[in-house]
Amino acid sequence: MSELKALLPDGVVLDDVPSRYLVDETETRSRLGFADAVVLPVSVADVVTVMRFAYAQGIPLTPRGGGTGYAGGAVPQGGVVVGMERLNKVRHFDPLLWRMEVEAGVTTAHVRRIAQESGLLYPPDPGAGELSHIGGNIATNAGGPHAFKYGTTGTWVTGLECVVPPGELIKLGGSQRKDVAGYDLKHLLIGSEGTLGVITAAWLRLIPTPQCSVPLLALFAAEASGCEAVESLIGSGLDLAAIEFVDSVALECVPPPLGIRGESAFALLLQADGSESEVAATLADARDVMKEAQITHAAESRSEVERIWRWREGMTAGVTAQLGGKVSEDISVPIDYLGDAIQEARRIGRKHGLRACAWGHAGDGNLHATFMIRRDSPADIAAAEHAASDLFDMAIAFGGAISGEHGIGLEKAGVLERAWGPRAYALHGGVKSLFDPRDLLNPGKKR
Amino acid sequence: MSELKALLPDGVVLDDVPSRYLVDETETRSRLGFADAVVLPVSVADVVTVMRFAYAQGIPLTPRGGGTGYAGGAVPQGGVVVGMERLNKVRHFDPLLWRMEVEAGVTTAHVRRIAQESGLLYPPDPGAGELSHIGGNIATNAGGPHAFKYGTTGTWVTGLECVVPPGELIKLGGSQRKDVAGYDLKHLLIGSEGTLGVITAAWLRLIPTPQCSVPLLALFAAEASGCEAVESLIGSGLDLAAIEFVDSVALECVPPPLGIRGESAFALLLQADGSESEVAATLADARDVMKEAQITHAAESRSEVERIWRWREGMTAGVTAQLGGKVSEDISVPIDYLGDAIQEARRIGRKHGLRACAWGHAGDGNLHATFMIRRDSPADIAAAEHAASDLFDMAIAFGGAISGEHGIGLEKAGVLERAWGPRAYALHGGVKSLFDPRDLLNPGKKR
Repeated sequence: MSELKALLPDGVVLDDVPSRYLVDETETRSRLGFADAVVLPVSVADVVTVMRFAYAQGIPLTPRGGGTGYAGGAVPQGGVVVGMERLNKVRHFDPLLWRMEVEAGVTTAHVRRIAQESGLLYPPDPGAGELSHIGGNIATNAGGPHAFKYGTTGTWVTGLECVVPPGELIKLGGSQRKDVAGYDLKHLLIGSEGTLGVITAAWLRLIPTPQCSVPLLALFAAEASGCEAVESLIGSGLDLAAIEFVDSVALECVPPPLGIRGESAFALLLQADGSESEVAATLADARDVMKEAQITHAAESRSEVERIWRWREGMTAGVTAQLGGKVSEDISVPIDYLGDAIQEARRIGRKHGLRACAWGHAGDGNLHATFMIRRDSPADIAAAEHAASDLFDMAIAFGGAISGEHGIGLEKAGVLERAWGPRAYALHGGVKSLFDPRDLLNPGKKR
Repeated sequence: MSELKALLPDGVVLDDVPSRYLVDETETRSRLGFADAVVLPVSVADVVTVMRFAYAQGIPLTPRGGGTGYAGGAVPQGGVVVGMERLNKVRHFDPLLWRMEVEAGVTTAHVRRIAQESGLLYPPDPGAGELSHIGGNIATNAGGPHAFKYGTTGTWVTGLECVVPPGELIKLGGSQRKDVAGYDLKHLLIGSEGTLGVITAAWLRLIPTPQCSVPLLALFAAEASGCEAVESLIGSGLDLAAIEFVDSVALECVPPPLGIRGESAFALLLQADGSESEVAATLADARDVMKEAQITHAAESRSEVERIWRWREGMTAGVTAQLGGKVSEDISVPIDYLGDAIQEARRIGRKHGLRACAWGHAGDGNLHATFMIRRDSPADIAAAEHAASDLFDMAIAFGGAISGEHGIGLEKAGVLERAWGPRAYALHGGVKSLFDPRDLLNPGKKR
């Protein structure tokens, strides 16, 4: 790598390979990568240089955002890790025009905060916003609770700047809001998990912040009535911004916040946003619809809003804490299959001798179906892999997707062909070959 | 074609080639195509059969929706026209789950009506909804006034069924709302103008219909103050569903509706939707922001709503009526360039000796910049082609797109490389070769 060092500014190629660049959230299932070097570009030109070098030498590149992924997409399999954290400038922020151009290494939370200070909302709210990068969010088309109303990350990207093999900078879209000129290569890069190019910057679209935004927690004594409530809420045409669920096992691991107790076999967390009167009306209607709920509680203060959402966001850590590890898969199903999918996930867990639970984005039919494991037990890990495979088969059988949020990464490698069939999968492979003919960008992922 | 006839049910291959299958809206600029046969499939299997036959024989295929395009995308250049009008079944409608699966030949208006009858909204509202097909809307990623708030057609498509060369049916996505498993091939097909595959059906996402929806018309004595008002409306963070504009020349051609008169150098048409109180508040705020407006009028009855929108939708016909023809291009620019682009469009017209005007989707920076021509004058047509080319250069110089809505079709063929640069354009060509290696799907378009 001394040759690469000579091509780049001092300090861009690290002297060693810090272990934090070899893992992401799949560490909870003992996933550990390996790499020959870590490069932290300080400019887009550096990214071009690295890719040209790698392409000329046949060295794999693994682009890395905040390392908060759940699919192993950022776990390197040799070669060079390209960490984007120093490319963290906000290039433009035009609050009066509802738009922002940021470099890939800006964190999601930073984008949301800057927007908020000017009365604007960047709606995507993936789980680890303080750590995750916009570049990584785009590369995975990250979701989050509010995707129910506002769509996933890709919905908010009007332009992308990226470096594609063998090392050229291209721009797809820009600050204009509409563009149907060419094939939608921008959406090809969105969700491509670093296998087609390295995203270096993006133009994001923003909207005015809703006047108020209130969560409501509902506990149900029976899972079936909770799942029915999801369909009823949607069927009633309520304008909800999020409909999240937590099943009984996950609730045991992470009890409801604010000291709310009850016979809780199932929880729903709704969010309504808009004017104060609208939010009040929507939540009142929601309570009417959820007749079967034992307890409903709408946040009454800013601190309650934060505590309710912190509880929801704490699900991953709380469930992981049970045995030290977990395998969590983010299948998505048509909403009418939500209840079946939750039940089936636990049945699959039992079949493989694992404690299973589920939580996630009910309104989008997007489950985080989770098998708890001892992180150092090869038997547990193997059982969980088998369970995950059954889970994917279930998602396919229900007409859903094997990933609603996290992507394929390493964890779901090999499942896509089963889901898509041979012809569509061949086109998928063809796209990869078109962009990256030497298969050097994040090899082994997204396939 | 007798061989093809033998492979298909009776009547699927027409006996002659009716001239209506050889044109689209570019008839106003004298665009006329030619074809050897017209095929009107009655099943998806027929589409597969036609493509297999065409691919085996090396015969070009031009898929056709409602024929309402403005870019010549449906104008055949020989070979077989595949009209989708008989594939018009609503396969599924699940109002309680906000979703619908329709075949490609269902009209946009029919989708909107069915949804509306169940209290749901399919937001895309391209201009010719009574005639245009959902398949064509998807193939062009059609926009419309409400794209400002709700996004273009592609935003509402969760799944696609299509036939790709050499004649295989594939499914991309489905009724699930979230899917990040593979590369976003669905979005590649969206807006591909029939050059990558033939869309046969789609799953659409719906939302609850807003309680009310009211347009407000504002007339300005000066164009500059009208354009400033657009930026102020956005900068004030008003939740508007549409912000449309009409310039002075277009207003001369199509005077304001409801007998509203005044020194009208510029008109804005806003739409607010939501609860009654919200709509009232938004429109009141909008009036405050548009201090410079000479006249503002919010629709006071259902009939006024219709008359205001009919006026807006009548722009195309009214402007065409001036000289019998027009060349209209749908460039899109960053919103801060809207005023410049409108002025520049008229200047370009003058330079080429043509009367020019513009109207369109102000909030999206999307202009329909239009040059009026005598349809039978080759000199006018040639001048308009040159003017259009200048217009594209302007859009590129302003950091915008050469098409915000209509696509490339035949009309903008050859401009994309200028806009995108060599590397991105090479990838564009690579996508085409990947899907359609023999270049038989709508050849000559989208390049």
